[in-house]
Amino acid sequence: MFASAWKMYGDLMVFAGTANRPLAEAVAQCLGETLGKAEIKQFANSNTFVRLCQSVRARDVFLIQPTSAPVNDNLMELLIFIDTLKRDSAGRITVVAPYYGYGRTDKKDQPRVPITARLVADLVAVAGADRFVTVDLHAKQIQGFFSIPCDELPALGQFIRYFRGHPVPNAVVVSPDVGALRRARNFAEHLRLPLAVVEKRRSLDGNGTETLNLIGDVAGKNVILVDDEIDTGGTLVKAVNFVRAADAQEIVACATHAIFSEPAADRIHESVLSRVVVTDTVAISEAKRERLGAKLDIVPIAPLLADVIQRIHVGRSVGELFNE
Amino acid sequence: MFASAWKMYGDLMVFAGTANRPLAEAVAQCLGETLGKAEIKQFANSNTFVRLCQSVRARDVFLIQPTSAPVNDNLMELLIFIDTLKRDSAGRITVVAPYYGYGRTDKKDQPRVPITARLVADLVAVAGADRFVTVDLHAKQIQGFFSIPCDELPALGQFIRYFRGHPVPNAVVVSPDVGALRRARNFAEHLRLPLAVVEKRRSLDGNGTETLNLIGDVAGKNVILVDDEIDTGGTLVKAVNFVRAADAQEIVACATHAIFSEPAADRIHESVLSRVVVTDTVAISEAKRERLGAKLDIVPIAPLLADVIQRIHVGRSVGELFNE
Amino acid sequence: MFASAWKMYGDLMVFAGTANRPLAEAVAQCLGETLGKAEIKQFANSNTFVRLCQSVRARDVFLIQPTSAPVNDNLMELLIFIDTLKRDSAGRITVVAPYYGYGRTDKKDQPRVPITARLVADLVAVAGADRFVTVDLHAKQIQGFFSIPCDELPALGQFIRYFRGHPVPNAVVVSPDVGALRRARNFAEHLRLPLAVVEKRRSLDGNGTETLNLIGDVAGKNVILVDDEIDTGGTLVKAVNFVRAADAQEIVACATHAIFSEPAADRIHESVLSRVVVTDTVAISEAKRERLGAKLDIVPIAPLLADVIQRIHVGRSVGELFNE
Amino acid sequence: MFASAWKMYGDLMVFAGTANRPLAEAVAQCLGETLGKAEIKQFANSNTFVRLCQSVRARDVFLIQPTSAPVNDNLMELLIFIDTLKRDSAGRITVVAPYYGYGRTDKKDQPRVPITARLVADLVAVAGADRFVTVDLHAKQIQGFFSIPCDELPALGQFIRYFRGHPVPNAVVVSPDVGALRRARNFAEHLRLPLAVVEKRRSLDGNGTETLNLIGDVAGKNVILVDDEIDTGGTLVKAVNFVRAADAQEIVACATHAIFSEPAADRIHESVLSRVVVTDTVAISEAKRERLGAKLDIVPIAPLLADVIQRIHVGRSVGELFNE
Amino acid sequence: MFASAWKMYGDLMVFAGTANRPLAEAVAQCLGETLGKAEIKQFANSNTFVRLCQSVRARDVFLIQPTSAPVNDNLMELLIFIDTLKRDSAGRITVVAPYYGYGRTDKKDQPRVPITARLVADLVAVAGADRFVTVDLHAKQIQGFFSIPCDELPALGQFIRYFRGHPVPNAVVVSPDVGALRRARNFAEHLRLPLAVVEKRRSLDGNGTETLNLIGDVAGKNVILVDDEIDTGGTLVKAVNFVRAADAQEIVACATHAIFSEPAADRIHESVLSRVVVTDTVAISEAKRERLGAKLDIVPIAPLLADVIQRIHVGRSVGELFNE
Amino acid sequence: MFASAWKMYGDLMVFAGTANRPLAEAVAQCLGETLGKAEIKQFANSNTFVRLCQSVRARDVFLIQPTSAPVNDNLMELLIFIDTLKRDSAGRITVVAPYYGYGRTDKKDQPRVPITARLVADLVAVAGADRFVTVDLHAKQIQGFFSIPCDELPALGQFIRYFRGHPVPNAVVVSPDVGALRRARNFAEHLRLPLAVVEKRRSLDGNGTETLNLIGDVAGKNVILVDDEIDTGGTLVKAVNFVRAADAQEIVACATHAIFSEPAADRIHESVLSRVVVTDTVAISEAKRERLGAKLDIVPIAPLLADVIQRIHVGRSVGELFNE
Repeated sequence: MFASAWKMYGDLMVFAGTANRPLAEAVAQCLGETLGKAEIKQFANSNTFVRLCQSVRARDVFLIQPTSAPVNDNLMELLIFIDTLKRDSAGRITVVAPYYGYGRTDKKDQPRVPITARLVADLVAVAGADRFVTVDLHAKQIQGFFSIPCDELPALGQFIRYFRGHPVPNAVVVSPDVGALRRARNFAEHLRLPLAVVEKRRSLDGNGTETLNLIGDVAGKNVILVDDEIDTGGTLVKAVNFVRAADAQEIVACATHAIFSEPAADRIHESVLSRVVVTDTVAISEAKRERLGAKLDIVPIAPLLADVIQRIHVGRSVGELFNE
Repeated sequence: MFASAWKMYGDLMVFAGTANRPLAEAVAQCLGETLGKAEIKQFANSNTFVRLCQSVRARDVFLIQPTSAPVNDNLMELLIFIDTLKRDSAGRITVVAPYYGYGRTDKKDQPRVPITARLVADLVAVAGADRFVTVDLHAKQIQGFFSIPCDELPALGQFIRYFRGHPVPNAVVVSPDVGALRRARNFAEHLRLPLAVVEKRRSLDGNGTETLNLIGDVAGKNVILVDDEIDTGGTLVKAVNFVRAADAQEIVACATHAIFSEPAADRIHESVLSRVVVTDTVAISEAKRERLGAKLDIVPIAPLLADVIQRIHVGRSVGELFNE
Repeated sequence: MFASAWKMYGDLMVFAGTANRPLAEAVAQCLGETLGKAEIKQFANSNTFVRLCQSVRARDVFLIQPTSAPVNDNLMELLIFIDTLKRDSAGRITVVAPYYGYGRTDKKDQPRVPITARLVADLVAVAGADRFVTVDLHAKQIQGFFSIPCDELPALGQFIRYFRGHPVPNAVVVSPDVGALRRARNFAEHLRLPLAVVEKRRSLDGNGTETLNLIGDVAGKNVILVDDEIDTGGTLVKAVNFVRAADAQEIVACATHAIFSEPAADRIHESVLSRVVVTDTVAISEAKRERLGAKLDIVPIAPLLADVIQRIHVGRSVGELFNE
Repeated sequence: MFASAWKMYGDLMVFAGTANRPLAEAVAQCLGETLGKAEIKQFANSNTFVRLCQSVRARDVFLIQPTSAPVNDNLMELLIFIDTLKRDSAGRITVVAPYYGYGRTDKKDQPRVPITARLVADLVAVAGADRFVTVDLHAKQIQGFFSIPCDELPALGQFIRYFRGHPVPNAVVVSPDVGALRRARNFAEHLRLPLAVVEKRRSLDGNGTETLNLIGDVAGKNVILVDDEIDTGGTLVKAVNFVRAADAQEIVACATHAIFSEPAADRIHESVLSRVVVTDTVAISEAKRERLGAKLDIVPIAPLLADVIQRIHVGRSVGELFNE
Repeated sequence: MFASAWKMYGDLMVFAGTANRPLAEAVAQCLGETLGKAEIKQFANSNTFVRLCQSVRARDVFLIQPTSAPVNDNLMELLIFIDTLKRDSAGRITVVAPYYGYGRTDKKDQPRVPITARLVADLVAVAGADRFVTVDLHAKQIQGFFSIPCDELPALGQFIRYFRGHPVPNAVVVSPDVGALRRARNFAEHLRLPLAVVEKRRSLDGNGTETLNLIGDVAGKNVILVDDEIDTGGTLVKAVNFVRAADAQEIVACATHAIFSEPAADRIHESVLSRVVVTDTVAISEAKRERLGAKLDIVPIAPLLADVIQRIHVGRSVGELFNE
Repeated sequence: MFASAWKMYGDLMVFAGTANRPLAEAVAQCLGETLGKAEIKQFANSNTFVRLCQSVRARDVFLIQPTSAPVNDNLMELLIFIDTLKRDSAGRITVVAPYYGYGRTDKKDQPRVPITARLVADLVAVAGADRFVTVDLHAKQIQGFFSIPCDELPALGQFIRYFRGHPVPNAVVVSPDVGALRRARNFAEHLRLPLAVVEKRRSLDGNGTETLNLIGDVAGKNVILVDDEIDTGGTLVKAVNFVRAADAQEIVACATHAIFSEPAADRIHESVLSRVVVTDTVAISEAKRERLGAKLDIVPIAPLLADVIQRIHVGRSVGELFNE
């Protein structure tokens, strides 16, 4: 893509784990490369095994593997793959994990719990990765969990472009909970839309009931709900019902990572949501695509990843991509 | 305070840097101890120097030093003090930094900036600290920046007790910006109050103007503005004016860390704020106390710190302190 | 069990992951303790989560979790549990993993493969474990993969005692492949039995056929096949058939780790093996126990683990246990 | 040797310690290079000292030093040489230690002993080496002791070629003890020869007597004894006598590393061995060469090392060398 | 300056902190480069902040920042700048700190004090620097405090050239205290001058009086006092008075680092020193330059730094610069 | 010796390597302990091997081993011993190396040389030592080479007591070279004696001749030459001859470490030195003791080491020992 007189590492090679093979192939195609060949399997005893089918000595290797579900298998596969590349003397190993699993366990919001998102950053480094690339972390602070350089790519630009092409008139941006408000604000700021937030509150008498409050105004407006990921869809659909009860008109959801754990697809399908706009950082099964049908709009993330990989390979600024 | 048959380290010793000597003395008094003796000075060439006046060999040392302004001096003094303790063979070194400086530089919210909050966590560890205790981090994720165990103590309980003793009738809790909403929500949840948020938005045409929006409703109500710290008071006073313009009645502010950088004291003094409730994690000068006079209410943090130090020393749960 | 005037850490606490709960309970019972309480679950998105239900501050914690199948889930659960214990300020964390998963990927016996057994040792250390206890590693060199102290407990004594109680007359010890010969030799040496080995050899013309050779003599003798683990039973059953073809009489198998991956239970059931003697380092499902019925003899490992845990806790020699 | 458009490091430089200077010169000659100049000496107080006589800044340095006897001197010389190269800003430091001393102390086969082979791997890394190249480790797992990339080169191909050129008719491959069986098997597999093993067994009554058993059949056949190294020759000569007593005909020994500690040369000379085939990874003194005379056949290892150094320098696969 | 076919890193970039901007500009000019653009500021709360105004991805970055007074601010600025460069993926980060602050706290010359010079070396490494360049350390051993490669450049050659151009006839070189004798000796050796030393001795009766002794002879001679730095000038001026009392004639001082803490300029101005010869490793304020007037001779250090930066960039020997 | 209610580690155990067994036994006797039992040997292949004959689990182990000649053997023995203790789960490992080998290679006083004294500090730490105790380092900065706590014990007090008991009237303290001046000054300060220094200077015309200068005055006085160690005695005897030529009367030498490399004993014997006063940090052979006869006075260091070991064990200040 760019000419470069500079050549620190050997040729670019792109490998993929099994977590999102279609995405990896799309990235490779954008780059005009074919994916590196490797045998990846689980033995009968459930041990993951990786064997490279070609030498990576001194090469500039990018390994594409979002740590989506099954997260433990995908993460261990990632770590073992890194170890394999390191022991075969790769020149540089850049992990491209467009979805960062365990990102929601990023703080001790109650006593005696882990901070798994930090643990994972340490595991990746100790396995031997040199760099880490990801898309839209659950909290931007997670970048600080890494001791190796970490590029977090925002998908915001992709979504802004999408909504400029598919405008929602008379819209208000709604954060489905308190934690997603900053993300929703940035979204609203770029599209110059007003903002509201749904607040979930536990009763403190210990009976565990939750109440929702809407802070801000949605009556008579169309709503765009913005979050970083859709997991089981529980929070989302509660917010949908709540804003609908507050007289919202058309309701659209937008999230970077389409985790779609059970029963997300059913919940969305049965909800009054008119549309769900996501990227393909995480592989979405055919079954879920069919279940959601026209309600689902997928913004491809491969062109962004390919552009960034190429820039990293030749030593060109990544940041300038995001300064429109 | 507690009996303990268990004795991993030598006797408890409490030392203090120069950042908040009155707080350290209050903590020592709560513990029934006197502060360890050390000579701390800056040479003519501005080099910080520490010399212990008594042996700390094998002792269980707690070093009290918030990294408040002048932050670089206080931080380097902390690191040099740790090195001194380590090289004099302290048994265990627990840093008690009730205010964590550089906490707001905790993420790359624009390209090409540092994550200084992670850097500081690494500096503290490499200097030789074994544990870290702090109060109300700017973001809870910062705990994950530490590789050594880190106890973050919430001041929330202190404030809840304060407001139960000094109730504000017909109140709404307001977050002065988007980033503080989660903290304000927890506060509101415990006092069973409604919630609102002031949103600051930059115009994107590059001329740098800001507009504020109020999400939620304050008209005719008393307002409690909740944040983690008051720095120059700029954000706070803008929010005060904004909610007053929206017909708020009495306006009170509540924040853990009273940074009070210039011109915070003047701004608060001149504002319509009726009261500012803070703790003394950071030393507040006599001048500022006088300037703010009756507007300032200080909830002492020393009893909490002393309790936690005692629990860490004897190996008793700290978490149970915060499960009311 | 032993009196001790010495007390470096707080009280002993034993926790267990989900990999082999019955074993952990048996160990606790031997120790006269109850297992520590913790909530362990997988969220809908497959993320493993651990929450301690009691404080471990300063305690001497032993965490029992063999990394058996599903190995990635059990290993990640182990790492997350360690992180949780570390961040709750456990005094010392000793991992008791009686089966060490990925132990067979301990060397590069072909180019471009990982050394996952070393990777796992690094993961355990970076998560925060202080010590590691295991039983019968696939290769003794794996102990050298650890930078933290690692106690490898031989089950040999247990088996020797078993076979002294259940003698096999006129027996020869057979190693089912070249790699297990050293283990079989030690076994034979203690029982003063002769030794033989089955050698598997690949044809080098690339068509992948294997041939077996028997080195040594089994005709007219009873055979005890000795290995460290029985996985799918493929190697074992081939060896069984091969020695039977060489006129072996009764054939017994003995292995520390009863992995029993599919279709091990069926293979064993259908084979001419008269008995399989294993320990319970790995949980054996009821279904498999029933399938194997009287062919299966299980030597309980809990008493050995409990003895060792007690010795580590009070600082008494572990090695003296194994010097008969 | 190969053209390469890629250039990560500065020019290739080859240095040598004093452990096997003739080998280093042979390697340099194969590469068409001259050895880098350095002053290496021991002061009167026995301190080893290294001074480079030319700059290595940014160069791609290969340092040839097997850690053979005197192993402590050779190892410390290696570590000090690495430190010197690192502090003179070498671009990359690859240690080429064709013999890995302390390799036999690779596991705790009794309590309270070190794992020196792991210790040495850590020493090499902490001194500042970037990569490690060696030939035929005592156990392949030792590769996993390294945290830096480690290439273990098998000499098997050299020996196979040798025995194809100097065939031993009607031969059986014999492992002189249990530990060397896997190596002997690989050897036998490539030459399509049968296999046998000599088993040494200690009596367990404590009087220390040993008995040997032959597993497999050698009567009337020629024998090739295969091991990784010949140290004092004790094990080897016992095996020679034992197979001869079992009616073996001509007996040949083959081992990668010709340690030849006293009294190996005498033992071999006086034995019925007809030939000993070794490489020159370790320097063999003129005195020993003369003592062994025509019994000794040395397969030069320099061409293999030179080929690998060249491949590492230009970033070409090393593994493909070993896939016949 | 030199042609080089070798290119490990991207283009050279030179950045500067705020500690000695004129020196950095002089270095850049010697290199024919312009300084990289970065925003460096202190917020109202005294937090230092750095933002790069251009990408440094893959570049070979040199960061010029002596850690002179205010040393804590300059050091933290350096560490934060390194973190910023690292997180923006600089290819290599070389710190050029021509003055190394805290260098005098390099040993425990009394109990219970820090070794801050080692601490600082660790801080620089943990922040992410790859290399360190400095001029005339207080003790050469400080180079050994670094785990990263460290080039210490002697200014001796500059001074020798200066004094050959500005000869002092009939001179004796005097070390102003015992610690500086080695440096004075090297100076004297190159100029072939005799040597003397002023010894300061504390009375041991605890009343703190000091006495000076002159070892060697200065009567009737001109004196060149040689030290590594001039801090407050106290030691220097005492030595000046002492040698004058011993009948020295013209007295000149020579030191690499012109720290000039208060009241150095006044002390020197009022002394009988005829000249002070220093380099500009540390910024010297206009006020001090004026106060000292013609007594001050500054030997520019920028050409040396520029030459070394260029050599490091292209991988050419630095050491050969210093072998006249 | 001292009562202590505090007990962090298990019982004290003292082990010794082979470098100075008589000293270790003297230390043990002072402590009322017997040395721990361990088998230490060199195999025929020169590999050092250590096996503990008793468990050290949880014990507070002190390992006495000066790294004197043969330094590489003694250092590797030390490292292997540490590894053995660590892997047998010692509670704490304190190395007591009263002489620190390689201490004179502590800086790059010419280009392209190692800093072996730093390397050794890293080797000791990576092997697993927790603490380091030594006597009179060649340069005090070496303490800063350690990342683990390091106690450097001065023998100065021992010598001061000795010379108070064996006074030298009308004496001047002379440093035999520039590097030892600070040590000589401290010595002179305590005994209230004048000071002089012998300066060695190389001619710079490259013919390698050396000239000596005496700075200070010795005529008609008795001389005490003070240095940290006597190696081959070359520097010492040159200084002796030089001060004698300058009309010194009786000449005595005093040094902590009696390295006595060949031909030190002969040189001293044949010199005009009347006495040499040393400690026994390094083992002095019977042959050398006889050769030097009445000229040699040995101040035993064991009482000091025993006192310090006891203090470290019970957590009592070591520093207070040295504040007379």
